[in-house]
Amino acid sequence: MIAAYQARSQARVDAALEALFTPPRAELARLYEAMRYSVMGNGKRIRPLLVYAACEALGGDPVRANQAACAVELIHAYSLVHDDLPAMDDDDLRRGRPTTHKAYDEACAILAGDALQTLAFDILAQAPQSAETRLEMIRVLTWASGPAGMVGGQAIDLESVGRHIDQGALETMHRHKTGALIEASVRLGALASGHATFEQSDALGLYARAIGLAFQVQDDVLDIESDTATLGKRQGADEARNKPTYPALLGLEEAKRYAQALCEQALHALEGFGESADPLRALAFYIVQRRH
Amino acid sequence: MIAAYQARSQARVDAALEALFTPPRAELARLYEAMRYSVMGNGKRIRPLLVYAACEALGGDPVRANQAACAVELIHAYSLVHDDLPAMDDDDLRRGRPTTHKAYDEACAILAGDALQTLAFDILAQAPQSAETRLEMIRVLTWASGPAGMVGGQAIDLESVGRHIDQGALETMHRHKTGALIEASVRLGALASGHATFEQSDALGLYARAIGLAFQVQDDVLDIESDTATLGKRQGADEARNKPTYPALLGLEEAKRYAQALCEQALHALEGFGESADPLRALAFYIVQRRH
Repeated sequence: MIAAYQARSQARVDAALEALFTPPRAELARLYEAMRYSVMGNGKRIRPLLVYAACEALGGDPVRANQAACAVELIHAYSLVHDDLPAMDDDDLRRGRPTTHKAYDEACAILAGDALQTLAFDILAQAPQSAETRLEMIRVLTWASGPAGMVGGQAIDLESVGRHIDQGALETMHRHKTGALIEASVRLGALASGHATFEQSDALGLYARAIGLAFQVQDDVLDIESDTATLGKRQGADEARNKPTYPALLGLEEAKRYAQALCEQALHALEGFGESADPLRALAFYIVQRRH
Repeated sequence: MIAAYQARSQARVDAALEALFTPPRAELARLYEAMRYSVMGNGKRIRPLLVYAACEALGGDPVRANQAACAVELIHAYSLVHDDLPAMDDDDLRRGRPTTHKAYDEACAILAGDALQTLAFDILAQAPQSAETRLEMIRVLTWASGPAGMVGGQAIDLESVGRHIDQGALETMHRHKTGALIEASVRLGALASGHATFEQSDALGLYARAIGLAFQVQDDVLDIESDTATLGKRQGADEARNKPTYPALLGLEEAKRYAQALCEQALHALEGFGESADPLRALAFYIVQRRH
């Protein structure tokens, strides 16, 4: 079930994304090519899938969530391009291919990342929702991706390399670095549906916070258990950098149990929803069972 | 007259900007400090001044243009932080102080720039204008600052270093790199006023395009005629990098005459406006007469 849902949703968001990278003039061809390279390819599209699934859980038409789905993926892609830069995580491999600064050059990668961020807000401003809802969507995304969210998380991460931090500090870092954008994906999907009650928004918020953290715990587990070919990025990169991780803090087995417990929390939050929330449930399972 | 107007407007935008840099938690203190460092200081605030002056030319209250004024300055500041990076223009000095990556580090500068861009859209989404007008303001700013505007201009600039390009190509580059954001400043001010007729918008557009180009021609002239202490950035940097400039293309005297002619075009565009447009007129003079 989830495989077919994933394939359908991936195709939908990929088609919408693909349309964004036509250069308006010849001089800009290389920049747009680097932007396209950074976004298209083998991305799992987990954030767009969450947007669609949250929209559908509330009975909304996923096509009306296309702009929100594109926007979260553009933000995610820009953050990867910048995080991979030599001055940051210095990674050569991403999604099984050279990172953007390796395929192009550093200056081009910085600019492509900058442009992808701008494009995310541009596309969201053109969503089919009411003007008030679009503005709320923009604020959800600025909150989640800005200095109090994703960018702040990366800053905390860089400062914590080589330091011993406790589980509370590790969760703070991840809630910012990855959790905020995953939570925003669910909230954007709910806003795109056009009809979320206060109770439903609340339940989806609990779901999103649980899977946001589960996603990161599983990422840390995979950094140890998987191999570079399956991951599409360098295996063991966290350990090599002496980054704080859940397995380092809790032990590998306990980290896996923690991911499982968070998945169950997420499912519990969805108890008031019927079958329409099955894609959200399947995504919670997928997040802790994935191998890359 | 313009000095008092500048001082008053600078104080207004500086107070509004200053309020944006309170870290929401202790772990984010360094990131917010780097963001603040990148924005506050000795900036001339030409773009915010244009926002206010355009708003006032149409009889609007400049206080209602605060968010737009902050947003253009945040975009401008983020672009300087990223353009100064070693992988881009590799500059150590900006506004008379070490550049952000020198005062902090490269990773922090990349993240601070990213966060400033997000903040620009966040603040614009909270402007006091109607929801429809705020969305139009956001679209004006995404257009001007994104890949088809400012970021695209920087990409064209980097690709043209060391190449001979003609005046048409040079203008295309600058219309993107600096002209688009200057034009956006005027358009945002007009939108913030809440009452621009089609003819007025058109006239302000002509004004903005002329001073946008004049600004860049004068920048090129100053890169030759001024000294590092006055400029607050390295004098002769363009020449040293073999960058195409107006003096290189037209000769120094002809470049100065061109800046003057563009200033006159800008003033001509404002002929239908009364005294309320005097600050815009003064800014046009200031742009071609400034020494830094």
